[in-house]
Amino acid sequence: MGQVATDQFPLQIWSSLVARHCRNMDSRSFHYGDQLGSQAFRETIARYLRTARSLRCEASQIMIVSGSQQALELSARVLLDRGSRVWIEEPGYWLAKAVFALAGCRVVPVPVDEEGLDVATGIKLCRRARAAFVTPSHQFPLGVSMSASRRFQLLDWAQSTGSWIIEDDYDSEYRYESLPIASLQGLDTNARVIYIGTFSKVLFPSLRLGYVVIPPDLVDRFIAIRGAMDICPPGFYQEVVTDFIGEGHFARHIRRMRVLYRERRSALVNSIDEELGNGVEVLGGEAGMHLTVALANGARDVEVAERASRQKLWTWPLSRCYAGQKPRQGFVLGYGSTAKADIPRSVRGLHDLLQGKRNSK
Amino acid sequence: MGQVATDQFPLQIWSSLVARHCRNMDSRSFHYGDQLGSQAFRETIARYLRTARSLRCEASQIMIVSGSQQALELSARVLLDRGSRVWIEEPGYWLAKAVFALAGCRVVPVPVDEEGLDVATGIKLCRRARAAFVTPSHQFPLGVSMSASRRFQLLDWAQSTGSWIIEDDYDSEYRYESLPIASLQGLDTNARVIYIGTFSKVLFPSLRLGYVVIPPDLVDRFIAIRGAMDICPPGFYQEVVTDFIGEGHFARHIRRMRVLYRERRSALVNSIDEELGNGVEVLGGEAGMHLTVALANGARDVEVAERASRQKLWTWPLSRCYAGQKPRQGFVLGYGSTAKADIPRSVRGLHDLLQGKRNSK
Repeated sequence: MGQVATDQFPLQIWSSLVARHCRNMDSRSFHYGDQLGSQAFRETIARYLRTARSLRCEASQIMIVSGSQQALELSARVLLDRGSRVWIEEPGYWLAKAVFALAGCRVVPVPVDEEGLDVATGIKLCRRARAAFVTPSHQFPLGVSMSASRRFQLLDWAQSTGSWIIEDDYDSEYRYESLPIASLQGLDTNARVIYIGTFSKVLFPSLRLGYVVIPPDLVDRFIAIRGAMDICPPGFYQEVVTDFIGEGHFARHIRRMRVLYRERRSALVNSIDEELGNGVEVLGGEAGMHLTVALANGARDVEVAERASRQKLWTWPLSRCYAGQKPRQGFVLGYGSTAKADIPRSVRGLHDLLQGKRNSK
Repeated sequence: MGQVATDQFPLQIWSSLVARHCRNMDSRSFHYGDQLGSQAFRETIARYLRTARSLRCEASQIMIVSGSQQALELSARVLLDRGSRVWIEEPGYWLAKAVFALAGCRVVPVPVDEEGLDVATGIKLCRRARAAFVTPSHQFPLGVSMSASRRFQLLDWAQSTGSWIIEDDYDSEYRYESLPIASLQGLDTNARVIYIGTFSKVLFPSLRLGYVVIPPDLVDRFIAIRGAMDICPPGFYQEVVTDFIGEGHFARHIRRMRVLYRERRSALVNSIDEELGNGVEVLGGEAGMHLTVALANGARDVEVAERASRQKLWTWPLSRCYAGQKPRQGFVLGYGSTAKADIPRSVRGLHDLLQGKRNSK
C-alpha cells in the first residue's frame, strides 16, 4: 500500500533536471531558505491547486513540508492543545491518530458512511471538538468521496463552533469514474480549513515533499512553530520539482499514471470477483492506488495478513484502521506497484489463505 | 552567522555524485526508507564519529534528521514532559530555548564561565532538572570549550539524578588552537547522553541533514515519535553524502575549510583589535565560524545591530542570547562567508556605528 509504479517514473527527465540544478547551485541555494519554502515552488503549487483542485489560495498561504505527516503534525501543534478533542474518521488513517495522540488530544471516532464522515453523529458525539480530520476525496480506507451536502454540513459545523477542518486531499489526482468534487478548502468561505497535500503518491515517497495551505491569519503561527521544529525545508528538490511541474512533465506523468493505475485497478477488481466471489465487498475502487476488500464478519484479517506476508503477499488489515470497538474485517490492497499480470496470482494466493489452504506459490 | 563559504564547496565533485545517484535510482530509492535513515549512511557516520569525535556508537543508535533543530525537537518529545525543567546555557542558543518552550518545559538558565556550564550552580538552582542542553565543543555564543572536569561533573550529575544530557556538538570540526576534547557522549559510561550533530556547517545548511546518537534503550521511543512526526528522512542526499564521505571528499573539504576559516578568523580578530581597540573583548575565536565581541556595559547591541543591518552589515546582538535579567552587550560575528579582504571594512563600519557616526557607504 502506498507504493507507486516507480518503473514508470520519467527518470531521464528527472535526472537531467537534477543535474541542471546541481550545476547551477548558487550561494542562495546553499543557505537556509524561507521557512515557508521556496517562493517559486509555492507559486507553482498555488497555481496548480487553484486550477486542479479549485482551492482559494495564494503562495503566501502555502508552507512546504516533508509530507502529509509533517503537515498534520504541524497543524496539531498550531491548532490543538493537550486534551483538545478531535474528530477522526472511523475507520480512518492510523498515522493521523498517532499524531493526535502524540499531541495529547482525545480523538473522537466518527463513523463514515456512503456519503463520507457522518457529521450529524459527530455533532451528537462531541459538538465542541476543536478540529476534524478528514480525507474527503478518497476516504481512507473505505474510499468514499464525501458528498457535497456533507461537505457543506461539515463547513457549517466548523463555522458555528469555531472549529478547524484538517483536509488531507491525498489521492485526489487519480480518479477513474467521477469528476473530482471541489475541495473543502475551495468551498470554505470562513477560513476554517487547513488543506494538506503531498507529492509522495504522484512523484515518489522518498522525495519527502508535501505542502499545507494555511488560512491567512494562521500563517505566522505556523511559521513560528515550524521554525522551532526544523527551521526550513531542504532546498534542492523544491527547485527541481518547480521545473518538473513548470515544464509540463508533472501533468504528463499524472495523465500516464492515471491510465496505468486504472488498468491495474480493473485487473484487481476482476480478479477479486473471480477469485473471492460474493463473499466479499469491494470498496473505494473509484480513485487512488488502493482499494478495500471487506470480508464477512468472523474472518480474521490480522491473522490472514500475517500469514500472507510470509508468502510476500502484502495486505493491510481493515480492522487495524478502527479506533473503536466493532472493527470490520478486510484488507486494504495497494495496486500502485503491482504489474497487471501479477495481480490474478496474488488474489488467488489471498483466496487460498482465506480458505485456509497452504499456498503452493 | 551560520553562513558557510559556499564558493569553496567542491560543487564539481558534488554534482557528479548527485548525477550518478540520480541515474542509478532503483525502486528501493524511490520508496519510504528506514525511519532511522539509510543503513549505509548511518554506518558511515558511526565510523566518522568514533574516530573524529571518540564517540561510543553503532549505526543502530544513529537517527538521521533534518538538522540539529529537528534532533533537539525529537529529543524534547522523547525525554521531556510539559513542566519538565531543563538546564540551558546562559547565555545560550535561542532556538534551543524555543524548542523547550514549545514542549511546555520550564528552562533553568545556568551561567557559563571560562570552563563552560557552571554545573555546581545548576545543581543549586535545580538539581532535579530532567535534562541539560549543552554545546561543549564551542559554547554558543561565548565559544568556551567545556573543561574535562566540568564534563565529568555534568556526567556525574546526570547519572546521580537520572537526568539526560543533550550534547549539541556543532562546530566541533573547526578548531584552530587546541585539540578537540573528547565528546561527553564518548566519556559517558551510563548512556545518559543524547548526541546531536549536523552537516549544515561542514557541508551546507539547505541540505537539511543531521543526526542524533541515541542511547540504545531509547532508540525504539525515538523511532515511534519520529514515525508520527515525519515517517522517515528524504532518501536521496543520504546516498550522496555517504559517498562524499566514503570517497574522502568530506575529510578533504573540512581540512581546506579549516585553513580558510582560520585565516578569516585571524583577519577578523586583527581588525577588531585595530578598529575597536580595548573597549571590547573577543570571545570564542578558537573554533567554529563565528566569534563574539563583548562590549562595555551601557552599549546597546540590539539598536546598533538594527542600524548595522540597514548598511547590510549583519551581526547578532549578544544580549539576545540571554534568557535571564542581566544580559551582556555585544555581537556574535560570523566570518564563514566573508572574504578576508572584506573584513576590515565591515569592522570599521561596526566601529563607526558604535561611535554613532553615520557610515558613508
